[in-house]
Amino acid sequence: MREGRHLTRVQVMTLPDAAFLHRLADLADAETMPRYRADIAVDNKPKEGYTFDPVTEADRAAEAAIRAEISAHFPDHAILGEELGLTGSGRFRWVLDPVDGTRPFICGLPVWGTLIGLTVDGRAELGMMSQPFTRERFWADREGAWTQRDGIRRQLTTRDVGSLDRAILHTTSPEQIGEGLANGFERLKAAVRMTRYGGECYAMAMIAAGRIDLAIEPSLQPYDIVALIPIIKRAGGIVTRLDGGPAEEGGAVVVAATSALHAEALRILI
Amino acid sequence: MREGRHLTRVQVMTLPDAAFLHRLADLADAETMPRYRADIAVDNKPKEGYTFDPVTEADRAAEAAIRAEISAHFPDHAILGEELGLTGSGRFRWVLDPVDGTRPFICGLPVWGTLIGLTVDGRAELGMMSQPFTRERFWADREGAWTQRDGIRRQLTTRDVGSLDRAILHTTSPEQIGEGLANGFERLKAAVRMTRYGGECYAMAMIAAGRIDLAIEPSLQPYDIVALIPIIKRAGGIVTRLDGGPAEEGGAVVVAATSALHAEALRILI
Repeated sequence: MREGRHLTRVQVMTLPDAAFLHRLADLADAETMPRYRADIAVDNKPKEGYTFDPVTEADRAAEAAIRAEISAHFPDHAILGEELGLTGSGRFRWVLDPVDGTRPFICGLPVWGTLIGLTVDGRAELGMMSQPFTRERFWADREGAWTQRDGIRRQLTTRDVGSLDRAILHTTSPEQIGEGLANGFERLKAAVRMTRYGGECYAMAMIAAGRIDLAIEPSLQPYDIVALIPIIKRAGGIVTRLDGGPAEEGGAVVVAATSALHAEALRILI
Repeated sequence: MREGRHLTRVQVMTLPDAAFLHRLADLADAETMPRYRADIAVDNKPKEGYTFDPVTEADRAAEAAIRAEISAHFPDHAILGEELGLTGSGRFRWVLDPVDGTRPFICGLPVWGTLIGLTVDGRAELGMMSQPFTRERFWADREGAWTQRDGIRRQLTTRDVGSLDRAILHTTSPEQIGEGLANGFERLKAAVRMTRYGGECYAMAMIAAGRIDLAIEPSLQPYDIVALIPIIKRAGGIVTRLDGGPAEEGGAVVVAATSALHAEALRILI
């Protein structure tokens, strides 16, 4: 017990490494992949603002696996998960969405992902998104933002298209754009080169990868965005709430490849 | 020349086999994959009803490769391609969309595909969709509809959810739903369990795979749908125009997993 406490104290000073993020993603993949495109139970757990929110066995099993591994290595870290809520307290808090994009998951569309983030004092510091069907990882550690597939690791970098009329905009669902944002969103759609829907967390990864330039998500939970924040920021992008504040607590979130695009988008939206 | 003519005459009586479809897909993949997520030239070729229609080098190179192979083996077959239009004439006509979903292609979203169809006397008889990033094939030959990944081939079968309120609906872009269809589409959205956007041809493959139940696409070209018709039909689904006629010439197209769902959807839409 004393030795355990001592180890924990030392580890509190340093962030877990990328290898630990990959280990958590491996554990999640082992639960999600066998259930993807298999016949699984789909519950209907209504939530505010959603008419349909399936929660799969994959969600539950992956969260349990990630939680067990975190607790074994970092017993004094808090964990906030989509399925089981908040456990523990303290400066270090893991934020988990075992299957972000349960809708594409049940539709067989490979744009869902497992999101694993770590906040320190409320700031997102580490992030991992795993898409096991395409065999891709997107993550951020202290050194930068990275993607890997087929054993090849590449650095993630957002692109600079220069102006809004050359930008690609993404939002997951047009139905989620509430009345308060509807006019602003229409103006933004008219100002950009192209608008895409349905990409979920995979579209956020494509902002980090320099393929998409802007995303608006009007009502995110912390576990929908925390893991993605360091990935986008360390790739050169920017993530804030619509009011300009930090996005770690979720809400209406604006993501952009550059600060200039972000400012232009906020000006048009509000 | 005489030998060539003789071979051609014999082959006219039988359909090309699945191996030939895979050979065409291999040739297309060799052109599309190196350009996917690479920096490629994106032209802006405006078309009616679209504000943005990129045509990539992948499109052109893949169509050229498919055309060359077809012409070498079936010199008397006609070919209709998105890039080069119609060449030749006769009972056998190949219908090609080398990159269906150029928008997700340029956004880095793996829901585009290469579509290769063959019509005989105007009826779609063979179809292939290749998604080389996920390393999947979806195809239909005389025997049935199939998918393959990692060397494992499985038969495609649509599912029967029983009623519209349990069905998942897909359309690629809400902006494409014109005024004539807007009210019907709103009614249909209200009647189904869930509506998804942005899946392009990949969502059609997921109807054949029993993951999605309905799709509405208000303005398709023949090359957007011909390859998919036999894949969906031989998996147990149904594909027609909104007026109930055959979909081989494109237009407003309704795809359903079962005849009952198709009839319900048409009743609500019109």
